[in-house]
This record gives sequence, structure tokens and C-alpha cells, in this order.
Amino acid sequence: MNENQTKPLVGIVMGSASDAPTMHKAAQVLEEFGIGYEMKVCSAHRTPQRAHEFGAGAQERGLKVIIAAAGMAAHLAGVMASLTTIPILGVPMDGKVMGGLDALLSTVQMPKGIPVATFAVGNHGAVNAALFAVSILASSDPQLAQKLVDYRKAQTAMIDENPPAA
Amino acid sequence: MNENQTKPLVGIVMGSASDAPTMHKAAQVLEEFGIGYEMKVCSAHRTPQRAHEFGAGAQERGLKVIIAAAGMAAHLAGVMASLTTIPILGVPMDGKVMGGLDALLSTVQMPKGIPVATFAVGNHGAVNAALFAVSILASSDPQLAQKLVDYRKAQTAMIDENPPAA
Amino acid sequence: MNENQTKPLVGIVMGSASDAPTMHKAAQVLEEFGIGYEMKVCSAHRTPQRAHEFGAGAQERGLKVIIAAAGMAAHLAGVMASLTTIPILGVPMDGKVMGGLDALLSTVQMPKGIPVATFAVGNHGAVNAALFAVSILASSDPQLAQKLVDYRKAQTAMIDENPPAA
Amino acid sequence: MNENQTKPLVGIVMGSASDAPTMHKAAQVLEEFGIGYEMKVCSAHRTPQRAHEFGAGAQERGLKVIIAAAGMAAHLAGVMASLTTIPILGVPMDGKVMGGLDALLSTVQMPKGIPVATFAVGNHGAVNAALFAVSILASSDPQLAQKLVDYRKAQTAMIDENPPAA
Amino acid sequence: MNENQTKPLVGIVMGSASDAPTMHKAAQVLEEFGIGYEMKVCSAHRTPQRAHEFGAGAQERGLKVIIAAAGMAAHLAGVMASLTTIPILGVPMDGKVMGGLDALLSTVQMPKGIPVATFAVGNHGAVNAALFAVSILASSDPQLAQKLVDYRKAQTAMIDENPPAA
Amino acid sequence: MNENQTKPLVGIVMGSASDAPTMHKAAQVLEEFGIGYEMKVCSAHRTPQRAHEFGAGAQERGLKVIIAAAGMAAHLAGVMASLTTIPILGVPMDGKVMGGLDALLSTVQMPKGIPVATFAVGNHGAVNAALFAVSILASSDPQLAQKLVDYRKAQTAMIDENPPAA
Amino acid sequence: MNENQTKPLVGIVMGSASDAPTMHKAAQVLEEFGIGYEMKVCSAHRTPQRAHEFGAGAQERGLKVIIAAAGMAAHLAGVMASLTTIPILGVPMDGKVMGGLDALLSTVQMPKGIPVATFAVGNHGAVNAALFAVSILASSDPQLAQKLVDYRKAQTAMIDENPPAA
Amino acid sequence: MNENQTKPLVGIVMGSASDAPTMHKAAQVLEEFGIGYEMKVCSAHRTPQRAHEFGAGAQERGLKVIIAAAGMAAHLAGVMASLTTIPILGVPMDGKVMGGLDALLSTVQMPKGIPVATFAVGNHGAVNAALFAVSILASSDPQLAQKLVDYRKAQTAMIDENPPAA
Repeated sequence: MNENQTKPLVGIVMGSASDAPTMHKAAQVLEEFGIGYEMKVCSAHRTPQRAHEFGAGAQERGLKVIIAAAGMAAHLAGVMASLTTIPILGVPMDGKVMGGLDALLSTVQMPKGIPVATFAVGNHGAVNAALFAVSILASSDPQLAQKLVDYRKAQTAMIDENPPAA
Repeated sequence: MNENQTKPLVGIVMGSASDAPTMHKAAQVLEEFGIGYEMKVCSAHRTPQRAHEFGAGAQERGLKVIIAAAGMAAHLAGVMASLTTIPILGVPMDGKVMGGLDALLSTVQMPKGIPVATFAVGNHGAVNAALFAVSILASSDPQLAQKLVDYRKAQTAMIDENPPAA
Repeated sequence: MNENQTKPLVGIVMGSASDAPTMHKAAQVLEEFGIGYEMKVCSAHRTPQRAHEFGAGAQERGLKVIIAAAGMAAHLAGVMASLTTIPILGVPMDGKVMGGLDALLSTVQMPKGIPVATFAVGNHGAVNAALFAVSILASSDPQLAQKLVDYRKAQTAMIDENPPAA
Repeated sequence: MNENQTKPLVGIVMGSASDAPTMHKAAQVLEEFGIGYEMKVCSAHRTPQRAHEFGAGAQERGLKVIIAAAGMAAHLAGVMASLTTIPILGVPMDGKVMGGLDALLSTVQMPKGIPVATFAVGNHGAVNAALFAVSILASSDPQLAQKLVDYRKAQTAMIDENPPAA
Repeated sequence: MNENQTKPLVGIVMGSASDAPTMHKAAQVLEEFGIGYEMKVCSAHRTPQRAHEFGAGAQERGLKVIIAAAGMAAHLAGVMASLTTIPILGVPMDGKVMGGLDALLSTVQMPKGIPVATFAVGNHGAVNAALFAVSILASSDPQLAQKLVDYRKAQTAMIDENPPAA
Repeated sequence: MNENQTKPLVGIVMGSASDAPTMHKAAQVLEEFGIGYEMKVCSAHRTPQRAHEFGAGAQERGLKVIIAAAGMAAHLAGVMASLTTIPILGVPMDGKVMGGLDALLSTVQMPKGIPVATFAVGNHGAVNAALFAVSILASSDPQLAQKLVDYRKAQTAMIDENPPAA
Repeated sequence: MNENQTKPLVGIVMGSASDAPTMHKAAQVLEEFGIGYEMKVCSAHRTPQRAHEFGAGAQERGLKVIIAAAGMAAHLAGVMASLTTIPILGVPMDGKVMGGLDALLSTVQMPKGIPVATFAVGNHGAVNAALFAVSILASSDPQLAQKLVDYRKAQTAMIDENPPAA
Repeated sequence: MNENQTKPLVGIVMGSASDAPTMHKAAQVLEEFGIGYEMKVCSAHRTPQRAHEFGAGAQERGLKVIIAAAGMAAHLAGVMASLTTIPILGVPMDGKVMGGLDALLSTVQMPKGIPVATFAVGNHGAVNAALFAVSILASSDPQLAQKLVDYRKAQTAMIDENPPAA
């Protein structure tokens, strides 16, 4: 099962099943924070109706944030952003042409009026989108805000100042 | 009025009114061939419902081809392609980041299953998309096919082999 | 044998034998739709006469569409487009410099007057060019048009909304 | 005065005074929504202490979101993100090298653990970052959420479907 | 008249009349060396037959070198190279997408077996292609070789070591 | 232990432990010259305080040069440069997007007033940054300057003019 | 006159007289610090002997640092670095292809063994190379080191935290 | 031994021994045509004197053409071109940053006055540079010109029009 027990606050959509290994990293972050999420494969191009239903009904289903991951001409985040006013976070997937630059530009270069918050290409972006989703939820949840501060501190503490030996 | 008298066979959609000067060049080509067209501003992101209606109803309205022009994270052609199986022609608009490369990659790098035929960035692409639309219509209209051959010959004949003097 | 039994309506040309694995994916799509095709290795640069004969005689041989695949300074689609007025579909092949961007730009940036419809770099583009060829043929063949709608629906249905487990 | 009367919830920082014309567009959006903001020039490199104070004290000053704009090796958003856990929105400024691609990559390619939500290069990104800030605040403010929905509707309604005449 | 009196040894072809201002700079270099040339507008795509005749008959007409200039999907040099074994020099023209990178890659990335010697984008490349043509002719013409050495010395001597005052 | 016995004159910082294999190559060069160094993992984003302490205290600790290596949105060198006036040498790490171009642009495109001396992406850059650090120290140490001349001579002598057989 | 009265410690070379407006900005920084410099036009390609003499004799003439500026295939800094072991600072000039990326890559991507410290494209890089030259000289000149600290402080103080009004 | 028996007419230089596998492909082409060549490792940066001697003495040693191969900030071809007026052919080597684009731009973007004829990145370019050298020598050697025509014909004949089976 892709959803955890608590009521989903974050929707994770991906353009292809092949994006799942990357997006499970986002899901894992949400689980560490005890945030409910739902996770779906939902292509802007091949399942446009499913994408439409996911985006148009998101707010009503109680979602507070959507993380949308796609590669190549990555339109999924943009489609979500066109259908709802809740925050949309875009994660460009790796690709062959210029190392994912196609997906990055397709996600970030949104026109005035319909924002997509874009993160780094691939795994780094997936983790960061999840952490950013937490920071949005934390802005009205002091307990979660504290958890996020603690997570950050732990992350800092884990970085050994001594590099591994040659 | 943006439409000519004959029944529209080609739909021209553009993501922003600022794309009109470029897309009028496409319209002019269609007029030279006496092909009816309709022309609309229709943003994938800011008017998603209008885009949906345009694309989903295209075939029923009698359109045989859609030319979709957009800049930046150019999703309009992709959205059209997701909604209908008639041929979609994409024209990337000029932009600041890498001279329109954002729009080019966002238009051409479509995933397997949902094709968008992409043309050059800007004016060249607009004219060529229109000529390509003519070639599609010509594939079942011998008279139009002949017109296209004549147009090509005239175009060739017009190119003076002597360069202008220094 | 590279051709199927029915009369070829689509010509598939590729600049090098090494492009065959990619272009067989295009051929397979045409076979699924029962569309006859011919398939040739034909380099714009190393076999210019063969390219010329292929392109100049295409229409007379009954071809309705040509799919041309090439890498690097990918001129094959442009050469075809200069020799005939039937629709030319270009598929840029993967390459080392910028991940195929050389082939993409060489294919898509055609000057005003001679259109090449360009698709994504590599396998995605090969499949999509074939589907696009089907859509052109379908524009005057209602039965084929219905097949294409059915193919699209089946494609949509095959996409499981549940991502594979982590 | 750069701040409006209401208590600032959004901080706008920019790396250089020359970024002000772009960032005033972000400020204007916040004013339309009646959201208090503070706006400062604050270079990651030339005024690191000011940047540190701005970022480290942001949450305590009551800021809920920071919008950070910078060009070239655009580090300002990253610096903010390293100093606080509230959401940081990055706006890359136009530049000469590859049309702002330097600032885009410097802003978006953040390593795992420290997210920066990145928007389009230049004016489009500035407006969208502000709208995204509104969407974050709206996630715990139903009245603001409604305003955002209304703004979106008005924006959609304003887009005339008829392109300007040639 | 575009040709000078002496028997043409160098052919200058350009894809469009708009390339003439750039290519006149190449012609001027040849004139300085007293080398006969012919100069034609001859598009690979819009006048393929003219291009074919120019290239296929070049050697017979007495041409020793061809300089081919084109922009965008710059195929002209490649077409020439496919039709003759005399040296082909390619000059990519400026363009919007990535500042002429499209023409550069379309000219230089020739496949194994059909070489095109490529020079810098725009004016620098035009002058250098002409100088390179001179160096080819000079390889069997000691007098011309001496002229080239003198030209180089004069060029070196003309570069004042003192920069212009601020 | 990452430091050698002599008093550290050069600080090597890297954004992630995964950069260590590359930066050990820099350390090895310093050891060949008998130059003391200290080497730390110190992320601009995940350990900003550690980065601040390293940079702000560098001069006082006796460091004469800092070599800072980072990937992606590589801010570490810029952060160091903002905190001290001793020379900062930046080494961009390899990455997926455009082969490290993200790190290169993030390191080199520093705004007026805060210089970072940037070297090639990856191993070449690491070795060269170390050699450059030696050249800085050598500018007031004639013995070291002589060692550097000898090193260069030995390097030259080691390059066999005969290529390895096919 | 391009040199000031004091003994030159810094050499400024540029590949073309057209680079002078940019490099005068570097000279001005050195003048503010009272550092003697010499300034020459000296092309790696068109005046190779002058370049050789400049580089090979630099150390003997008392130069401690060389700043080398060039555009396009910017080899001047690399040539200097091949001829001397004193620190070489490279400044890539603006260009058309990808906004100076050609010069940036030609300057920074030096092979292992011959370092060139590279700065931002154009004016920013010119000023920063000069400041970096000061930092090198300051590493054995406490008075100059103090001046540099003061300069930095003044620079910081000059940045008004209030952006200019809209 | 890297040289064949006949008097060398072509010089092949490469910046690093690691370029040898690629440049042996060029040598092999020359051998097929019975053209004498010499082949040396000769770095513009690490063995500048050897490079100088190679280039400055080339014409006197009887060389008619030089093929220069290098990677990264590929200056070797430019250095050769600055030292002699015989034709210089540049071959950019593969690299990590943008797939050899650094070497391509460093080789091709030569300033007005000092031409380098540039070929494709890597193996294709190496073979083509050799074929181009043959075409230069053939321009005053009818027998060699005929051999080149035959080689081209054989190459064309070898390309099977049937693609390999799937």
C-alpha cells in the first residue's frame, strides 16, 4: 500500500511508474514526519483525465500540497498548478538530453500567474520537495515546525567534519 | 475576425496574446492555400478549461490539425495532444533562457505515446507548421497536393542565385 | 524482410544501420496498425544519390509519409523535406554531445519554407513519429482514426495508478 | 518606505539594488492580497552578516516565507535556506551567460536536505514566487485561500480568446 | 557582379541572401589574395537542385575549395561534402537559439566519412574560412604561400601592444 | 589523519564526504610540496555555522589560501569568499545536469567585489587548485617558487612524445 | 599611458584592443590599491611571439601575477600559464555563442598540471580578477592585507539595505 | 613505430597520450591512402616548447597539414595555427562537461585571422580530419584525388540499404 494510515495531506504524483524509486524517497521523508500522503502514477499526457481529477479534486480531498514528478517535457506539475491553487512542488526527473535540463526547464519556466515551485533534478529534488512540503504544513503547526528544526539539527550533526581517508 | 469564411480545418491556438504576431504568419500561409482556420488564445495554465474544450472538441468541430504555439514551459501543444488523436503541431516561442531552448525542449521531448510534431523556434516554425498542416490535408486532397507542389516551385524560383551586392 | 505485405504507405529511412534498433520500434507501431511500410538505410552524406532517389520518388511510389532518423549533424529529414512535399517526420538519434542536442537542433531548426516535423530524441521519438504517421493517415481514413482512438484508450488503461512498491 | 502597514509575513530579499524593478512586481502581488512584507537589499556575498541576520532572525520576526532573488552565482536563496526552516522561494535573475541559466542552476540545484523552491527566471518568476507565498499563507487561512481562488478566476477571465488583429 | 575576373578557384555558397553581408567578408579576403571565386545563394532545402548542381559540378568547373555558409539547421556544407571530394569549409551563421549553436552543431557534427571543416560562428568564421581556403591553395603554390606568410606578418604587425586609453 | 605535521597554510573544505576522493588529489599535491593543510567536510547549506567558523577564522588560524569544493548549486567557495579576504579557490564537482555545468556556473559567476578563483570541473580542477595554492605561497617564498619550477619541469619531462601503440 | 608610476607587480594582457574597456576596470582596482601594473594587447593567436615574451619574461620583469583576458576560443590565459609558474588569472570575455560560454570553458577547463584561476564572464570577472591579484600580493604584505579588509568593509557599507523605490 | 616509411606530409599531434586510441583512427586512414605522417604527444600547456618546435618547424620539415587533437580547454590546434600558415585541422576530444562541448568551442571559436578547421567531437572527427587532409593533398595530386573518389565510392557501396533485422 502506498498510503500510510493518517489522513493524506500531501499528494505525490508521478508521470511514469519508472519514477517510483525516486519518489519513494520523498514518501520516506513524509513518513519520518508522520505526515499522511497519497501516491499515484498519473501522466499529464497519457492519463489526462486522471490527472485532471487528481488536481481538480485535491483541495476537496484535503490535500494541502502536491508534489509532481516528471521527466522530459515534464508537464505534470504545470497541469496540477493549472487546476488548483494549493502549492504545487515540481521535481524534474533525470533524462538523456542535457542531463535532465529538458525536464528542469519544462517544470520551472512557468508563465506569470501559475506558479510551480521547482526543486533539483532527481533524488535530491525529491527529498527536498518533501522537506519543503513539511515546511509548508509546519507554517501553521508549531509542533511540526519544531520537528523540522530538530530534523535539521540532526542532519547537521550527522555530517562528520573529517572526510573519509584516501 | 480571426477566422476566414470557409469551414475551419485547422485550429491555431497560442498560449498568450503576445504570440499573435508570430502566429498570424501561420494563418497567412493557410489563407494563401484557401484553408479555413480558427485562431484562439488559450493558455494551458491560465485557461485550462478553455484549452480542454478546444482540444477535446476539436475533432467533432471538424478540425483536422491543431497548431499550438507557446513559450517558456510550453505545455499547450502537449495538452492538445493528450486530448485528441488528430495531428498536433507545436511551435516553440522565443524566450530569454537559451534563446527559446526552454520552449523547444518543453514541446519536443514528449513521452512515448503522445506525439507532438515540433517545428523551429519562432517565425520559421510558425510558417513551417502551417505548411506542414497543408501537407497533411493534401495527403487526401490531390488538388491541394498540387497547389503545395506549385507553392514549393514558386518558392524555389524566387530565390535569386546572385547574392545582394556588398 | 523489412517490409510487410501490404502496400507501403510509410517510408522509414535511417542514416546508419546502427539506428535500426531504435527505428524497429517505429516499425512495430505501424505493424500494430496494419500499415505497410518500407525501411531503408540511406545516409544523406554517404549515400546522397540513394537518399535523393528515395525522397524524389517517394510520392510516386505511393508513400504518404516519411520518417527519417539520424544522429549528430542530422540532415536526412531535411534532405527528404527538400525533395518532396509529403509530410516528413524527423527523429533525432542519441549522441554524445549534449545528449543528442546536436541531432535535435539539426533536425528541428529548419528554415522557413521546408518543414520537418520533429519528435523527441531516441526511442520515445521513434514511437511517436510512427503514431503521428498513423494520425496523418487516419485523417482521411475513419476506420484507422477509430483504431487510433482505441489504441490511445488502451494505452491509458494500461497505466496502473499505483506505483510499484519501494 | 518599502514595507506596508500590516505586520510583515513575507520577507523579500534581493542580492542587488538592480534587482528592485523585478522584485517590486512580487511586492505588488502581495499588496493586492493585503499581505504585509518587508523588502531588503542583502547580498549573500557582499553583506553576509546582514544576510545572516535576516535569515537567522526571520522566523522570530514573524516571517512565514522568504522570497530571495539573485543573479549569476545566485546564492542568496541557498543562504537563507541554510539559516531557517521556513519556506524559501528563489527567483533567478536574468544574466548574460545562457540567458540566466547560471542563476537558475545556482538556485535550483540545492543538495538533499536544504530545499529552495525555485521559480522562472526574471519577472515571471518574481510574480509567481509572490503568488506561491500567498498559497502557502492561504493553506491555514481560508479567507486568503478564497481570495486566491478569486484572483485565479479573474486572471482566467481576463484572457481574451481572440488574439489581437494582425 | 559577384565574381572577379580571374578563373574561380573557390566557390562561396550561402543558404540565404541574408548571409551575404557576412560572406562578402570572405570574398574580400580572397580578393586581397587575387584568388578568383564565384558566389551564389543556394539553399540546401529550398533550392536542392541548384545545390546539387553546384556541388556535383564544382570540381569539373575548376573549383578547388567550397565555402558554404548557413544558419539554423545548417545543412548546406554537408550537402556539398556529400557531392564532391574537394575540401568543403563550413561557416555557421548567427541565430537566436543559443547564439548560433544550432548552426555550429549542424555543420561540425558530420558523421565519419564525409568531412566538413568548420569555422567560428559568423564574421570571424567567414574571414577564417577564406584564409583557410588560401592556405589550401597555397599548399601547391609557393608564391601564394609566401603571400600568406606576409599577410600573417602584416596582421601581427598591425596589433598595437598598447590598449586604447580608458 | 587528514592533516600533516607542519602548520596548516592551506584549508581544504568540501561540501560533502563524497567529494573526498577528488580532494585527496589536491591534498597529495600539497604534500609533495611539503605544505601543511587542514581538510574538512563543511557544507554551506547543511553546516552553515561550521562553514562560517571555518571561513571567518581562517586568517587568524594562519591559513593563507582556502580550496573549496562543491557540486550542484556549489555555494561553498562563495561563502568562504564572503567571510575572508584571503584567496579562495573553487573546485566544481561533477554532476548529472550538463556534466557539472551547474557547479561550474555556481562557482565562477561571482558578482563584482567577492572573487572566487575557479578551476576545471572534477579531478583536473582539484589538482590545479592545489598547484595554484602553491604558486600563491611561492610568490613570497623563493625556495617554494624554485620547487614549483622544478615540479613543472619534471612534469614536462614525463610526457613522452611518442604516443602508445595502437 | 597605461602604466602607473610604481614598479609593475601585475601584468594585464588582453587578446584584443576591444577588450580594453573591460580591462580598464581591472586596472582601476589596482590603482585604488596603489599597485603598479603593466597593460598590453597581446593575442595568443595573432601575436604569439609577443605573448611568449610577455609570459616567459614575466617573473624576471618582477611581475607577481598576470591577468589575462580573452574571448571566444580564449587561449591567452592558458598560454601564459604554460610559460611561467606565477599565478595566472583568466577573465573570459562576452561573446555571442551562449553568452560567453565559449570563452568561459576555454579558460577554465585547463588540464591537470597547468592551472588558470578563472573569474566570471566580462566586467564582474575583470574587477574580481584584480581584487584577487590584490589578495595574492596581500598574502605577504600585511599593510596591503589591511587595505583589502578596509576595501571590503567599505564595499559592504555602501550597500543600502533599502531597495530603490518602484 | 608511429610513422610509416614514406616522407611525412601530415603531422598528427595530440594533447595527451590518452588521445592516442582516437588518433590512431586518423593515422589508419592516412595509411590506407599511403600518405606519410608523423605522430606526437605534444601538450600546448605541459610541453609548450615541444609544441612550439613542432608547429614552427612544420613547414620546413615538409609537413603540408597538421591534425591537432585535444580535450577540455583544447588549445593545441590554436597554438599550431598561431605558428604556421599551413592548414591546421582540429579534433575536439570527448569530455565530461556537456559531452565535449568545452573542447569543441575551444577549438572552433578562433578569432579572425588565425583559422582552425574543426571536425566532429571524438572518433568521427579524427577520421574526418584525416580524410580532409587527404583532400587537401589531393588538390594538387590528381592520382590521390582519384583515390579519394574511389574511397568515397567504396564507402557508399558498403552501406547496405537493408537495416539489420530487429
